[in-house]
Amino acid sequence: GYASKTFEATLFPGDGIGPEIAAAVKEIFQAARIPAVWDEQHIGKTPDPRTNSMVTRENLDSVLKHKIGLKGPMTTPIGKGFRSLNLTLRKELDLYANVRPCFNIPGYKTRYDGINLVTVRENTEGEYSGLEHEVVPGVVESLKVITRKASSRIAEFAFAYARENGRQKVSAVHKANIMKKADGLFLECCREAATRYPDIKYEEVIVDNACMQLVSNPTQFDVLVMPNLYGDIISDLCAGLVGGLGLTPSMNIGLNGLALAEAVHGTAPDIAGKNKANPTALLLSSCMMLRHIGRKDDAENIQNAVISVIAEGKWRTADLGGAATTSDFTKAIIDKLD
Amino acid sequence: GYASKTFEATLFPGDGIGPEIAAAVKEIFQAARIPAVWDEQHIGKTPDPRTNSMVTRENLDSVLKHKIGLKGPMTTPIGKGFRSLNLTLRKELDLYANVRPCFNIPGYKTRYDGINLVTVRENTEGEYSGLEHEVVPGVVESLKVITRKASSRIAEFAFAYARENGRQKVSAVHKANIMKKADGLFLECCREAATRYPDIKYEEVIVDNACMQLVSNPTQFDVLVMPNLYGDIISDLCAGLVGGLGLTPSMNIGLNGLALAEAVHGTAPDIAGKNKANPTALLLSSCMMLRHIGRKDDAENIQNAVISVIAEGKWRTADLGGAATTSDFTKAIIDKLD
Ligand SMILES: CC(C)[C@H](C(=O)O)[C@@H](O)C(=O)O
Ligand SMILES: CC(C)[C@H](C(=O)O)[C@@H](O)C(=O)O
Repeated sequence: GYASKTFEATLFPGDGIGPEIAAAVKEIFQAARIPAVWDEQHIGKTPDPRTNSMVTRENLDSVLKHKIGLKGPMTTPIGKGFRSLNLTLRKELDLYANVRPCFNIPGYKTRYDGINLVTVRENTEGEYSGLEHEVVPGVVESLKVITRKASSRIAEFAFAYARENGRQKVSAVHKANIMKKADGLFLECCREAATRYPDIKYEEVIVDNACMQLVSNPTQFDVLVMPNLYGDIISDLCAGLVGGLGLTPSMNIGLNGLALAEAVHGTAPDIAGKNKANPTALLLSSCMMLRHIGRKDDAENIQNAVISVIAEGKWRTADLGGAATTSDFTKAIIDKLD
Repeated sequence: GYASKTFEATLFPGDGIGPEIAAAVKEIFQAARIPAVWDEQHIGKTPDPRTNSMVTRENLDSVLKHKIGLKGPMTTPIGKGFRSLNLTLRKELDLYANVRPCFNIPGYKTRYDGINLVTVRENTEGEYSGLEHEVVPGVVESLKVITRKASSRIAEFAFAYARENGRQKVSAVHKANIMKKADGLFLECCREAATRYPDIKYEEVIVDNACMQLVSNPTQFDVLVMPNLYGDIISDLCAGLVGGLGLTPSMNIGLNGLALAEAVHGTAPDIAGKNKANPTALLLSSCMMLRHIGRKDDAENIQNAVISVIAEGKWRTADLGGAATTSDFTKAIIDKLD
C-alpha cells in the first residue's frame, strides 16, 4: 500500500549540530518504517558563481527533483559578500510561504498555556528586497517592495491552509496606518482572499498591537498571515512563547507542492559533535514534511513520540534542563513509536 | 525655593477618556502642591491648512513656548487624508526620541517579574517616511530612510539617558543582516556613540531574536535603542509584558529640552464620560515630565502613590479587574501623597 511506497527527499544536514540532529531524524524514520530515500546534499565551501552563494545548482536541483526536503541549520560565512544560504534557497526555489505552527509541548512549562497558532510569512519580498542605496553620504534608502502577486498568493495560501487544517480564523498583520500603500495593498489582497473563504473568520491587526496581544493573550490567535519582516519578527516571538527555536518546526512552501522543512535554530557550534543537541525542531519539521506529502499517520507517530518523551521528562537534553544525550533522546523516541 | 516655583506646561486632554484622566492628573498635581500652570490646548475639529492636520499652529506654539507638555489619547478622523495627530506633533515639534520605561507594578501580577527596561525609539524617520508609490500597477515601493543625523542623535540620546539614569547597558536592535546599508548605518552610529560611553555596556541584537528574548528572558535587557518601526513594535510588546498600554508611561523628546509626555493607549470611547477610566499611564507619563524638568521629588511622590494604590488592590479600576471609579482611584492616590 501507500504507506510502504518509497519516496525520495532531499536532506541538507547542515553545519554545527546539523549532522547529529539529521542522523537522529534518519534513525527515527527508519525505526518508524517510513520508506524515505534521502538524497543528502552538502552545501559547498566555495561559492557557486551561478548562484553567488555556496548553494550550488546541484543542491537546488535535488530539491526541485524530489519536491520535498528537510534542512538542518546552516551558517553563512560572514563578510564575504555572499548571500545567506537560507535566503538563497528561498529565493532560488521560490519558496514563497514560511509556515510555523506554534504550540505548547505538554509537560514543558513556559509562561504560556494553550497556545495553538500558525504564522504564515510571505517569504520573498517586502523588506528583504535587497534594494538599498546611499542617496547622499549619510542618507540611506531601503526599499520595501509589496506586490499584488506575492500578497495574493500568500493570502490565498493562508486561507487554504486554514480551511485544510480545520482552523477558524485568519488574522492579517500589517502597519497600513503608516505604510498606507504597501501594507494597504497587502491588506487588499487578504480581503479579496477572505471573500473566497466565507467559512473562515478574517480580522486585521496592526503589528505593534499584534505583538502586545501575542504576549498578553496569545490564545486569541489561530492563523496569522503577514509580510516578510513582520513574519520574521512574529514567528520568532511566538517560538519564544513556547520554548524557543529548538522546539518549533518550520516549513517553506513553493509552487507545485515544493516544500522544504527546516529547523530554524542556529548551528550551536559550542556543542557540535558532542552528542548533546536536541533534534526536536528538525523532527517536528520532518513531521510537517510528512504531512505535506500525505503521510499523516507517520507524522503523528513521530510527533506523538517526540512530545511524550519531552512530556515525561526523563530523557531531556541539556537545553531543556536535562542530561540526556542526543542518542538517549533518540532511543527514547524510538521506544515510543507505534 | 525651587519646589514652589510656578511652571507652565501644555496640556492636551485629548479625546474619549482623555479629559477625565487629564482631570485626575490636575487634581493630583494640586493635592501634591505641584505649582503647575496648565495651558490647556484642544485639537480642532477642522484642519489647519498650515499643518495639513487638525493640529493648529497655536497648539504647536504652546508646546514650543512652555517646552514641556502632557498629552492624553487622541483619535485622528479616518479616511480624510489628514496626517495622524500623533505623527503631526512628533514631526512638527521634531520630537526625535520616544522613551518608554517598562517595569512591573508591584502587586499587579502578569506572567513576568522583575522587568525594568527602557525602550528608546527613533521617532522621525525609518519606515515612517511617508514615501511610497505604486511603480506599476500591483507593485508598491515603500521607502525606509535611515540617516546618520537621526541615527547619531538617537544613539547619543540612548547612551546619555543610560548614564544619567544609572543604567548599565544599551542594546541596539536591528536587522542589519538583511538591511545591510540602512540598519548598518544605524549600527555604525550606535557603535560610535558606544565609544563615547565606555562605562555603559553595548550589545547588538537582531530584531527577531530581540523579540524572542524579550518574551522568554526580558530581565536581561536594560536600555534598548532602535529605528522607528522596531521601536513601535517592541515598545508595545514590552508594555504587553507588564500589563498593557494603560499602565505604561511614554515621553517624546525634542531639541533644547523640549518634551511631550503622553499616554499611548487609545481613547476608549466605550467608557468615555463614565468615570471608569484608569489614569495610570497619563499619571506615570506626567511623572516622566516632572523628572525631565528636575522635579524628581514630585515625580517620586506621585509615582509611589499610584503604584501603592494599585499594589494594595482595594481601589482598582475595571481594566485592572476592580470596581473603582476614576474618582475613587484619584482620591486613593491623593490619600497616599506625602
Ligand atoms: C537568518 C536570517 C536571514 C533569517 C531571516 O531573516 O529570514 C532568519 O531570521 C529566519 O527567520 O529564517
Ligand atoms: C498611532 C500610530 C500612528 C502610532 C505609531 O505607529 O507610531 C502608535 O502606534 C504609537 O506607537 O505611538
